[in-house]
Amino acid sequence: MGIRIGILGYGNLGRGVECAIRQNPDMELKAVFTRRDPESVNILTESAKVCHVNEAREWAEKLDVMILCGGSATDLPVQTPEYAGLFNVVDSFDTHARIPEHFANVDAAARKGGKVAIISVGWDPGLFSLNRMYANAILPEGKDYTFWGRGVSQGHSDAIRRIAGVKDAKQYTIPVEDALKAVRAGENPDLTTRQKHTRECFVVAEEGADKAAIEKEIKTMPNYFAEYDTTVHFITAEELRRDHSGIPHGGLVLRSGVTGWEKENKHLIEYNLKLDSNPEFTASVIVAYARAAYRLSTEGAKGCRTVFDIAPAYLSAKSGEELRASML
Amino acid sequence: MGIRIGILGYGNLGRGVECAIRQNPDMELKAVFTRRDPESVNILTESAKVCHVNEAREWAEKLDVMILCGGSATDLPVQTPEYAGLFNVVDSFDTHARIPEHFANVDAAARKGGKVAIISVGWDPGLFSLNRMYANAILPEGKDYTFWGRGVSQGHSDAIRRIAGVKDAKQYTIPVEDALKAVRAGENPDLTTRQKHTRECFVVAEEGADKAAIEKEIKTMPNYFAEYDTTVHFITAEELRRDHSGIPHGGLVLRSGVTGWEKENKHLIEYNLKLDSNPEFTASVIVAYARAAYRLSTEGAKGCRTVFDIAPAYLSAKSGEELRASML
Repeated sequence: MGIRIGILGYGNLGRGVECAIRQNPDMELKAVFTRRDPESVNILTESAKVCHVNEAREWAEKLDVMILCGGSATDLPVQTPEYAGLFNVVDSFDTHARIPEHFANVDAAARKGGKVAIISVGWDPGLFSLNRMYANAILPEGKDYTFWGRGVSQGHSDAIRRIAGVKDAKQYTIPVEDALKAVRAGENPDLTTRQKHTRECFVVAEEGADKAAIEKEIKTMPNYFAEYDTTVHFITAEELRRDHSGIPHGGLVLRSGVTGWEKENKHLIEYNLKLDSNPEFTASVIVAYARAAYRLSTEGAKGCRTVFDIAPAYLSAKSGEELRASML
Repeated sequence: MGIRIGILGYGNLGRGVECAIRQNPDMELKAVFTRRDPESVNILTESAKVCHVNEAREWAEKLDVMILCGGSATDLPVQTPEYAGLFNVVDSFDTHARIPEHFANVDAAARKGGKVAIISVGWDPGLFSLNRMYANAILPEGKDYTFWGRGVSQGHSDAIRRIAGVKDAKQYTIPVEDALKAVRAGENPDLTTRQKHTRECFVVAEEGADKAAIEKEIKTMPNYFAEYDTTVHFITAEELRRDHSGIPHGGLVLRSGVTGWEKENKHLIEYNLKLDSNPEFTASVIVAYARAAYRLSTEGAKGCRTVFDIAPAYLSAKSGEELRASML
């Protein structure tokens, strides 16, 4: 019998987790928990059940790990502490500034329940964090750079959709090629927000809407667009569906550092992701950490962890011996 | 008082470790152990001693970690098991095929001595292994690629130097740009040895030597050059010293994989190193893992580990709280 997994929340991320479980033969999806009417939710895995979220507690003995696929704004701050007392859990909490607080809440709940919780799993936070950390430990004297994109920012797309006269919209965050070139050349540039990323918007306007006004409202929107060089394209609903229905993303973490008695030698560490599907890739990371949560729990571990606290081998279905023979 | 470090073997790697310790304020180099006459060895750290390797055993209580900087061919297979019984040790054993055997020998010694040993630390094996492992755990369906270079291969340079009529030589391994392009484009090419790397040789010939014969001998040398497209340049000793005295290296680990119910989405994970000094960068990785060895030992751990077995946070001088607040 495989590791028994539950999914709480069946949006893009939950579906991504379902797909990822299928690619890992040591895991089995047992149930999906939803706030909607379970009858209305169609999942892909025939052998798994769809249950109302209110039934989740009854599954405490029937699941090895519950994967929490809610949003970071309002769902996870409540859900992760709540379920960490009952299940081993993994979440993708990504509000960087609130991670310490979330960690404390989840840790208390998981310790009380004798469970393992792993928070903030995905690629940023997650794999990007790991790469920042490894690179900083190895090159203590240096400079960090993180670039995001080319990819869809859901938050920025939503912000455009809230503008009067906008029917639909998709926003891409794009690293500035010249900035990247300077970093890769070891120039250690100081980069402003504007120098690091541009924003490209594809907007479907309502009939008769004032496009010039929409464009101006986008480009001057504080925090979202005003600090960036932003391009706005008006397209048809058909074009949006045809050319911009995917959820690609990616990005880079770089550390440029020096070694040597006189700091005479330069080094560059670059980690680069190009992702066709942001939620499916995030889900794939989460599923690997679900394996880790399960294993740690079988070893008697308790409490909250992040990617920093988990030895890499816990993520792999292979044994230590296999890993040393095939991947070291 | 910082973590007390000893260095055994004072070649390029040993000197790199000495430099790296200087960049880590929580560490202190106490002694360098050499097979040469200690009087003849000048180190850079004024506060550290130079001792003969025969005195190493007397330092068992005076060091927290002994870093073994010998070679993988003959030194480390003997030294690491020998010293793992007395000290927490870190080595950079890089004969991939013999790692399982080395692990077993070191593990037995370290367990007996109640010490922690971390073997095969550096960038390959080491950081590249980590990236292969993480990427495989996250994208179970996909294809791995490792490219090395542009960088100096010591083994290949040595092979050229053994040819009659050759005074000195330096060999660079270079990834084939088109192969890299195909991998990055998600084409999942099957690549032969010749399609992955080219080899570029800079050779100083002895006066009156038959350059055509030397070039032919290089290009047809089995295992080293025959399987590659090799370029040979004859240059003067002065040019070799001026243009090729560095020990740069680097390379890339890529994994190209798919996700989705029908495997419809592609993803690319790339890890890329550009290093001015191969030994200094390797040393920097080793020193971060020396911190991990020390910490694991203070927690009561015993036995042999590899990079797969060590939670990333152990490498950092920062606390878990600091890491979560600043790097997650």
